[in-house]
Amino acid sequence: MKIALAQLNYRIGDFDGNKEKIRETIRKASVLGADLVVFSELAVTGYYPHDLLEKREFIERAEATIKEIAADCKGIAALVGGPAINQSDKGKMLYNAAWYLAEGEVRDVFFKTLLPTYDVFDEYRHFEPNRNFHILETSGIRIAVTICEDIWDEQPTFTEFGKNRIYQTSPLEELAPSGPEMIINLSASPFSYNQETWRKDILRKKARQYGVPLIYVNQTGAHAEIIFDGGSLVISGEGEIIHELKYFNEDFRMIDTEDLTAREVQPATDYIEKIHDALICGIRDYFFKSGFSKATLGLSGGIDSAVVAALAVKALGAGNVRVLLMPSRFSSSHSVDDAVALAENLGIRYDIVRIHEAVDAFEAGLAPLFEGLPHDVAEENIQARARGIYIMAISNKFGHIVLNTTNKSECAVGYGTLYGDMNGGLAVLGDVYKTDVYHLARFINRHQSVIPENSILKPPSAELRPDQKDSDSLPEYDLLDKILYQYIELNRTPSDIAGTGIDPLLVSRVIRMVNMNEYKRFQAAPILRVSSKAFGAGRKMPIVAKF
Amino acid sequence: MKIALAQLNYRIGDFDGNKEKIRETIRKASVLGADLVVFSELAVTGYYPHDLLEKREFIERAEATIKEIAADCKGIAALVGGPAINQSDKGKMLYNAAWYLAEGEVRDVFFKTLLPTYDVFDEYRHFEPNRNFHILETSGIRIAVTICEDIWDEQPTFTEFGKNRIYQTSPLEELAPSGPEMIINLSASPFSYNQETWRKDILRKKARQYGVPLIYVNQTGAHAEIIFDGGSLVISGEGEIIHELKYFNEDFRMIDTEDLTAREVQPATDYIEKIHDALICGIRDYFFKSGFSKATLGLSGGIDSAVVAALAVKALGAGNVRVLLMPSRFSSSHSVDDAVALAENLGIRYDIVRIHEAVDAFEAGLAPLFEGLPHDVAEENIQARARGIYIMAISNKFGHIVLNTTNKSECAVGYGTLYGDMNGGLAVLGDVYKTDVYHLARFINRHQSVIPENSILKPPSAELRPDQKDSDSLPEYDLLDKILYQYIELNRTPSDIAGTGIDPLLVSRVIRMVNMNEYKRFQAAPILRVSSKAFGAGRKMPIVAKF
Repeated sequence: MKIALAQLNYRIGDFDGNKEKIRETIRKASVLGADLVVFSELAVTGYYPHDLLEKREFIERAEATIKEIAADCKGIAALVGGPAINQSDKGKMLYNAAWYLAEGEVRDVFFKTLLPTYDVFDEYRHFEPNRNFHILETSGIRIAVTICEDIWDEQPTFTEFGKNRIYQTSPLEELAPSGPEMIINLSASPFSYNQETWRKDILRKKARQYGVPLIYVNQTGAHAEIIFDGGSLVISGEGEIIHELKYFNEDFRMIDTEDLTAREVQPATDYIEKIHDALICGIRDYFFKSGFSKATLGLSGGIDSAVVAALAVKALGAGNVRVLLMPSRFSSSHSVDDAVALAENLGIRYDIVRIHEAVDAFEAGLAPLFEGLPHDVAEENIQARARGIYIMAISNKFGHIVLNTTNKSECAVGYGTLYGDMNGGLAVLGDVYKTDVYHLARFINRHQSVIPENSILKPPSAELRPDQKDSDSLPEYDLLDKILYQYIELNRTPSDIAGTGIDPLLVSRVIRMVNMNEYKRFQAAPILRVSSKAFGAGRKMPIVAKF
Repeated sequence: MKIALAQLNYRIGDFDGNKEKIRETIRKASVLGADLVVFSELAVTGYYPHDLLEKREFIERAEATIKEIAADCKGIAALVGGPAINQSDKGKMLYNAAWYLAEGEVRDVFFKTLLPTYDVFDEYRHFEPNRNFHILETSGIRIAVTICEDIWDEQPTFTEFGKNRIYQTSPLEELAPSGPEMIINLSASPFSYNQETWRKDILRKKARQYGVPLIYVNQTGAHAEIIFDGGSLVISGEGEIIHELKYFNEDFRMIDTEDLTAREVQPATDYIEKIHDALICGIRDYFFKSGFSKATLGLSGGIDSAVVAALAVKALGAGNVRVLLMPSRFSSSHSVDDAVALAENLGIRYDIVRIHEAVDAFEAGLAPLFEGLPHDVAEENIQARARGIYIMAISNKFGHIVLNTTNKSECAVGYGTLYGDMNGGLAVLGDVYKTDVYHLARFINRHQSVIPENSILKPPSAELRPDQKDSDSLPEYDLLDKILYQYIELNRTPSDIAGTGIDPLLVSRVIRMVNMNEYKRFQAAPILRVSSKAFGAGRKMPIVAKF
């Protein structure tokens, strides 16, 4: 049996666009002699449509699209992800379904059993879990059709409670008595640099456990926060990876189930390269899928904005990136030189505006109210917010989306000004700790020096007062990031973290900073998620709490 | 049997504070001779702790708190809401539980079966549904103990799909064979002005259906977006409301199950009065529970900021509210006069700062970049953002939280400037349509004129260019709000809305504006929720989508 894996990049709610991509791929697979072509989870709608799933016309369009695609399936069959209405009078309105299309019509439908409702996943909000199991028989092969989480009945431990079975049911155990000869999994599995081995481990384990090949079709591309990395897989019944599709790109592969030997896998890459590629994918799709092409950002001469500018150029092209240098009276002359050097290295347009006239105007306006009070964070924030006004003016006048340059370490401890440097349509580094921003800079510079060495080597500073350094108010970033990673990604307790040899008072101080700044993150730009626990939709904390 | 209803205001994660409130109430009920005192859902943690529930130390504190409370239950029993660890090796980590405390210890525990996971509710994210049912027998009475949603197995229709049974199970049907003589419901049911009759209808229906009295204990108070209205109820087996506790305040009531006749209910109030009281509760608790007492906002002379200032004074006291008047060159002289008159009526401190020097400085800085381009939204936004800088400077310097004054109509169509007038720690009117803002102003003025008549009567204007009126770019608010209510609260399709006699082109234009502005709302301040569908946590829409 010849099966095609279709790893595509969908756009949420773009039924016409998604349909055309799917039909074109079916035609291509048909010409190549495929018996079955497999698409990913919720392919017709894009993953995840959120509360668009509550709109009647959205569901009607989705079901109509499925039927139109079915009409093309002549001499070839397809498995396509899309919502299905729950016809029972009980339970949620919808199922998350894999539609089996053949002979020009819908011939079968499989519903998702395990509905992830944690981190960025929210599926029980909209979907009823499947309770009835059946096998797909096609081209004489008995196939267990599963959707993403369905094969994750045993999860890698990811909470302090140490439990790895968060569901009551195992779909593969339910299907096993029917003797499946192959497992197919339609997926929408987002990228997390620190969990990427888990996925392969789980898939290989399941193939070995049931002794049958497993075909896993993921999607690729990004929708604001979430980045799907692709990397679809064909795994033999012995648990060996036979085929591995591209990462962060569309891909297509035909396999013959009679011949699962010739390995075609992707070259192994470092986690920093994966993050680098993920961020470029995230930027590119955010712009393309929003109908924009041009980005702007403020270039400070520091490392964060340098890395964002370099990534934006790779994602959008130098002609689509324009930057603003906004030195204050506290900016070092080096900062401007470094920013100019970077802009010239990247070949992007830059302009310099001075912020002190506007800052002076605000301070003069506030003088009668602030009389006799010391210069403090209020004035520092005026500088950051004046920069925010300038960059937004460029955005409003020329239609550029502002890229935010806040990194995860700053975002965690609230080291940033709301309505100032926290501005932006998309936060590129909001899920990348400062220590990894340095690694990204080194990676970007691996062939030639793009980011000036000085931006990488100088001590980090917000330059909001004379000789300010980040280390005046924060611990060194390598120590800070160690605390943050354990608290945020690993959900460890303060005493656990102190137990790894870090001063307990420092741990408490850092955790307190994280907790006190929920209100700021509530209003932060959407953050490109690259880890297992990003700020944003996947981490819901009360902003008014005492703990 | 004597039962006390304890309608309290909890603070999320404040185990010591919540515990002391609960213990004090147990002592009081004990002195009055109660056999049982009933608290609300998740009382020890506050509702809803979100991902704090994923922290081991949070759960350990919660269980320890329950045990400490149990130690006080001597000669009296209590039902207290709190999380419980799921001891099985399968399923989510926790149950949402009602703990039965008596004789100084935990004597029984009841788990919640129906886990709301829609709108602002997210319970399947953290909790495993109950599957085993048993009755509580105490003081010789057989009681069906349920938690909030457990009695909502039949929901009022709230989607276009018209389904009213979104669950597979009915906890009361499961318990019915055990012959309960009373139903107790521990609840955390938030206020929605347009759904408040539903709650009473459901509770009365269930009491009648099983022919037994029903005791419903809600909590009160607010946590950022969500406002709990209290209004706990005792309903007879005939479905009559016998007792009704206060709204938006703590309350306590002792009842004797032998004597369910004397009615003690709250006076009926208009929906505008309820919204008014809800917003005051929401402001007061946001400040108190965040450890702040002082608010600031920009007063424009328009109706929105006038209503917010008046509500803030009621919530926090005139001495804790300070306002800034920030006229631009396009502000009418009336605007300043109206704002001054309001501040004087309210007895609050006001200062006037002029924004044009700062605006001029930005425009001068941008002149080389904007040369030859027409004055447009870029310059209008500079004004709004310059005001944003001033008000945030007051906030930063004096520790005032900024109240945002955007109303729901503006928020819906994106009529507001990000990082400008969208600034604020809390959006007071973000769930109140403009037409209801007028009703609120009239309600505030019902005894004496607080808000100047001119602020109410003049045509709404952002005053960002000469003679600008909202109606230049938006339909009249009564028409706009009719479209928005049907689209947002009722989730109707464009053709359904046009079917109510509204120009289909206008309907499309308005819906397009709503959909195009998801990116702005993503960064909006938390909005006090008073309707069945507020922008914020209860309405999750993709920001990158094509539909």
